[in-house]
Amino acid sequence: MGVLKHYRQSDFSHDLIAGLVVGVITIPQAIAYAILAGLPAQAGLYACLVPMLLYAALGSSRHMVVGPVAVAALMVAAAIGTYGPRYGDAHLALSTVLCLQAGLFLWLLRLFQMGGLVNLLSHPVIIGFVNAAAVMIIVSQLSAFTGAGTGAAGDPLHQLLALPDYLRELSLPTFAMGVACLAALLIIQHRGIALLRRLGLDLPDDHPVARTGPIVVTLLATIAVVAWNLDGGSGVAVVGFVPPGLPDLVLPPFQWRMWIDLAPSAAMIAVVAYVESYSIGASLATRRNTRVNAHQELIALGAANIGAAFTGAYPVAGSFSRSSVNFQAGARTPVSSLVSAVVIVLTLLFFTPLFARLPHAALAATIVVSVLGIIDIGAARRHWRTHRPDSITELVTFGTVVGFGVEAGLLTGVALSIAFFVRQSSRPHIAQVGRVGTTGQFRNIRRHEVETLPHVAAIRIDENIFFANANQVENKLLKIVQRRPGTREVLLVCSAVNRIDISGLEMLHRINRNFAAMGVRLHLSDVKGPVMDQLAATDFVNELTGRVFFSADQAMRELATPD
Amino acid sequence: MGVLKHYRQSDFSHDLIAGLVVGVITIPQAIAYAILAGLPAQAGLYACLVPMLLYAALGSSRHMVVGPVAVAALMVAAAIGTYGPRYGDAHLALSTVLCLQAGLFLWLLRLFQMGGLVNLLSHPVIIGFVNAAAVMIIVSQLSAFTGAGTGAAGDPLHQLLALPDYLRELSLPTFAMGVACLAALLIIQHRGIALLRRLGLDLPDDHPVARTGPIVVTLLATIAVVAWNLDGGSGVAVVGFVPPGLPDLVLPPFQWRMWIDLAPSAAMIAVVAYVESYSIGASLATRRNTRVNAHQELIALGAANIGAAFTGAYPVAGSFSRSSVNFQAGARTPVSSLVSAVVIVLTLLFFTPLFARLPHAALAATIVVSVLGIIDIGAARRHWRTHRPDSITELVTFGTVVGFGVEAGLLTGVALSIAFFVRQSSRPHIAQVGRVGTTGQFRNIRRHEVETLPHVAAIRIDENIFFANANQVENKLLKIVQRRPGTREVLLVCSAVNRIDISGLEMLHRINRNFAAMGVRLHLSDVKGPVMDQLAATDFVNELTGRVFFSADQAMRELATPD
Repeated sequence: MGVLKHYRQSDFSHDLIAGLVVGVITIPQAIAYAILAGLPAQAGLYACLVPMLLYAALGSSRHMVVGPVAVAALMVAAAIGTYGPRYGDAHLALSTVLCLQAGLFLWLLRLFQMGGLVNLLSHPVIIGFVNAAAVMIIVSQLSAFTGAGTGAAGDPLHQLLALPDYLRELSLPTFAMGVACLAALLIIQHRGIALLRRLGLDLPDDHPVARTGPIVVTLLATIAVVAWNLDGGSGVAVVGFVPPGLPDLVLPPFQWRMWIDLAPSAAMIAVVAYVESYSIGASLATRRNTRVNAHQELIALGAANIGAAFTGAYPVAGSFSRSSVNFQAGARTPVSSLVSAVVIVLTLLFFTPLFARLPHAALAATIVVSVLGIIDIGAARRHWRTHRPDSITELVTFGTVVGFGVEAGLLTGVALSIAFFVRQSSRPHIAQVGRVGTTGQFRNIRRHEVETLPHVAAIRIDENIFFANANQVENKLLKIVQRRPGTREVLLVCSAVNRIDISGLEMLHRINRNFAAMGVRLHLSDVKGPVMDQLAATDFVNELTGRVFFSADQAMRELATPD
Repeated sequence: MGVLKHYRQSDFSHDLIAGLVVGVITIPQAIAYAILAGLPAQAGLYACLVPMLLYAALGSSRHMVVGPVAVAALMVAAAIGTYGPRYGDAHLALSTVLCLQAGLFLWLLRLFQMGGLVNLLSHPVIIGFVNAAAVMIIVSQLSAFTGAGTGAAGDPLHQLLALPDYLRELSLPTFAMGVACLAALLIIQHRGIALLRRLGLDLPDDHPVARTGPIVVTLLATIAVVAWNLDGGSGVAVVGFVPPGLPDLVLPPFQWRMWIDLAPSAAMIAVVAYVESYSIGASLATRRNTRVNAHQELIALGAANIGAAFTGAYPVAGSFSRSSVNFQAGARTPVSSLVSAVVIVLTLLFFTPLFARLPHAALAATIVVSVLGIIDIGAARRHWRTHRPDSITELVTFGTVVGFGVEAGLLTGVALSIAFFVRQSSRPHIAQVGRVGTTGQFRNIRRHEVETLPHVAAIRIDENIFFANANQVENKLLKIVQRRPGTREVLLVCSAVNRIDISGLEMLHRINRNFAAMGVRLHLSDVKGPVMDQLAATDFVNELTGRVFFSADQAMRELATPD
């Protein structure tokens, strides 16, 4: 709470405006994601109170808004879909256990300094996962749009297969409502600023008014339902009764079996929530030339989720859209979140009757438009040529998440990232190098005009020497020497070798002996400090038939005249 | 068969002697390992016929002898122990299926060019595994030594727990026989040459006579059994009837369920057999300045195992001890294996009655002495200080193999090797560098006396920039610049960066923007060809606020005068 101690009055007007805007646009999102997660509408609003305030108090990002997000809602829906039947469809109980476990998991990561583990979720894995989540979320809204089906968030394949059934049972008023809302949202988002400018208002491109679509559209949709009584004879599904008032204290049930069942999902939710939040916080922080503290973020996000558990909410994370709005609307400190919380409190106390006749189709349109923004198809296409393995990881992660669920998808993605990394490291680039002009620089003889010595093979190994490539390196070195008649000296330029493990060291011993049998001496140069320390601790340097030179330059000068 | 086309008469006398020596010492080993595997004695002898000849015909090593080996026997015993009861204890059927699957697996590795996968078995994993196998094999001989228990190769823990029972049921004549054989073997192996020299014979240190212990000892033991009728009243267990004659054609049973059950064991046997054989072949080849062909070895070893399957034998691999004897006894070509095979054929035709009264205790002594030679305890101790992760991998592999079996142990070892590798790569060494004297060399400012420029931070990243370390690298770079007042230029020296993946590229984009916001320009130098190609294919170089220099030397000269 260091922020409040140094709080300047001049900041308040900025925080007030940003907080009000964020508070208002939060309401339809919170309700929509709660319903997407398979929970009552108020659970979404509760997620914007205690969790948001706990993050504001503890977090290290000044602009991040924590609360319900689409991806976490989808993951909750998946967990509830799997384990709900086993535990009497106690959705809220399952959701609070997920919150509590996710929060505790984040705290454990902090406690054991394991936050770095999330770095294993590489950029391609995250892109693949987010795209897949977006597709699954959009498909899950088919039922709400058509007014057919149960509305349960099944797996996307089944939803797509059920499409003919949905179309047969299509409720025209519902569908019309959905399409109208969708159109209105897209127009406000993409053309809203331009339209207001034509009305004479001077707005910048990134004015938050473009983000007010959901609240405007849901309000208009509710008015339409009330005016034409659409939820009566026309059968347009609405949210129904939302109990007024603030959340009560909720104790998540402690059932050993349920905890075991939910733990993997909770861990995944925690990791995804953390990765998303951290990247949002970091990207906003750099715009103000500050940084977020990874350790502090684990604590704050953990606390927010534990807060969610005890107030009957569901797992929370940093919201990209609301954080951006908060930033663009000029928030200066987390006090803006305090203002947003007041908006939510007032809503819970006085405006819940408004939601009773809010149509599901309008919420579905809100969800679809918001997740359309997170789909990034260009990335895979852009990198296919230059970073093939990353593209493959992205596509496989996407496919596995859609086909087998979030957990399987993320684990597959991480395993594939690691496999590609090891595979690439196991096929090192090895170049013969020579002197560039009269400089001390040595470069690949195939790429540069360089000078070499006939009796010295200077070879640069562009990789750490370790178990997965030791045999390859050995074979390549032997091949180079066998194809280069007259070689009496081999110089290994180690400028790109950062580590040598036992398998690598054994290989060096072996090749040193083999070269000796062929009458060839082995020399090293440009050995880095940490590697030299390791070599010096073994007897390798004594066994070496040649010398360890400071640089390739020195080596080539001294080896120029055979001794 | 290129060898035979160019076969020189002068080689034959050498091959003949080596072949005879190898053939004779093979006999007790083959029988002992067959019994260790839970198979009849003749299965071991059959493994020295068709498999050995197929390898001799197809293999690329001139000196390697393929046949029964202790480690493969142990793995067969483990598979039979697990699945024997389910399939009516048809040990031979299980063993031939294992052979066939292992052979086919090796061929598949060749077909899909996946032979490199075996490189994942790092040196520490192999040492840990071999040590564990040796311990398990020795423990499995407790029953044969004491003449108590069933003799089944159970897991080592149970065998050790059963030791009190064994001692209570101890058969003194058996135990005396075992200890006497053990002592005789150790004396012949370690003092044999010295003793013969005292008798006036002039033998070199590595004369194969030191390896004849097993045949001498088993012969003497058999004579003792016959002379004192030890297998009668004294209850010394003997091998019993061994059917004379050559192996018949055997068809491995095709039961879908059995094939599925055995596939993982067979794959492990294949991988272990290949790794062991390849390293034996490679090490012998380098002594003659030749090389073995990894692809050809997969084909040859696959063929040898398929041959074993159809002749009622069990999985084969290159034998370290017999290959060494073959080499030391002067073998010049694989024709020596042909001679050894003739010895085995003669044995099968005429000498099988000799084995009927060969005591198990003598075979157990043979096994113990031969596996004592493969235990390497020093390695873990030696490397504990310099290569901690490798030592841990070794110990964990050892423990897991002993506690949970070969498959679990090898998989754990590989996973741990990879985890340590990724973990180390995720914590890169990052050094600020400066000019050494007036040279073009740049080195770590903490280790060398170097010259720097106050407004330029020259930073060398000693690792590929990839998903697992991108965030770390970003944080460290920001920290260095924030702690170094007056920095206007950052030079990333990329001499040790061999690859940059998408996550790394995203990070570079981000940090370039962040530095720009801080009024700091970002430059690169010493970018390798392959990395430059990748960068050039994206818009990173255009977005870069600074320049890409050829070398750190050039960069520091040009940045010396701020523009």
